Amino acid sequence: MIVRIAELEIDPDQLDAYKALLAEEIDASVRLEPGVLFLNAVAIKGSPEKLRLLEGYVDQAAYEAHLATPHFRKYKAATAGMVRSLRLLEAEPIVLMAKPGLSSLS
Amino acid sequence: MIVRIAELEIDPDQLDAYKALLAEEIDASVRLEPGVLFLNAVAIKGSPEKLRLLEGYVDQAAYEAHLATPHFRKYKAATAGMVRSLRLLEAEPIVLMAKPGLSSLS
Repeated sequence: MIVRIAELEIDPDQLDAYKALLAEEIDASVRLEPGVLFLNAVAIKGSPEKLRLLEGYVDQAAYEAHLATPHFRKYKAATAGMVRSLRLLEAEPIVLMAKPGLSSLS
Repeated sequence: MIVRIAELEIDPDQLDAYKALLAEEIDASVRLEPGVLFLNAVAIKGSPEKLRLLEGYVDQAAYEAHLATPHFRKYKAATAGMVRSLRLLEAEPIVLMAKPGLSSLS
C-alpha cells in the first residue's frame, strides 16, 4: 500500500464549489477504482480554506491509474483555478484502523 | 463527529519503541471504545520520525472519554520522553470514504 498526504489552500470565494467537486471525485474514485483504498478530506477548524487529504492506494500503479481516470482529470481541470497552493507528501503507513463497517462519512 | 490531526516528531533513537506503543494504543482504542471511529497513523516518507495522525471520534465527549482511558494514559506516560514535538489541530470532516470492509491496515 502507498499513502499520500495533500495539503491544499483553496480560494475562499470558491470553497463551496471546490468541495462539491472534491466530494464527487472522491466518491467516484473509491467506488470505481479497485486500487483506491480510502480518500479522507478534512478542513482545519477555523481555517476552512485549508484542507488536508489522506489517501490510500494499493500500490504505485494504482495511484498512477487514478491520475489518468476521467473523474480525476475532470476534477483537476475544473478546480485548477480554485487551488491557491498544493503540497503533496508521500507517507508510510504505521497503523490505519477503523471500526468495522465504517466505510463512508461525509 | 469530530476529527483531529496530530503532527508529531519523535526521538529517532526511540522511534521503534514509540511506534510499538502507538500501535498498541490505537488497537485498544478502536476495539474497546465505542466512540472512537478511526485512528490513522502515518510517517512522512524520508522523515520517519515525523508522524501524522488523523483521528475520528463520535463527538467531543467520546474524545474526552478517550483521554481518560487506561490504555491512552499508559501510552501518554510511556511515550512522554520520546515525543520531541506535538501539534494538535482540530479539523472538520469534508468527505471520509473507504472501500467497504476495509477496517484495519498496518
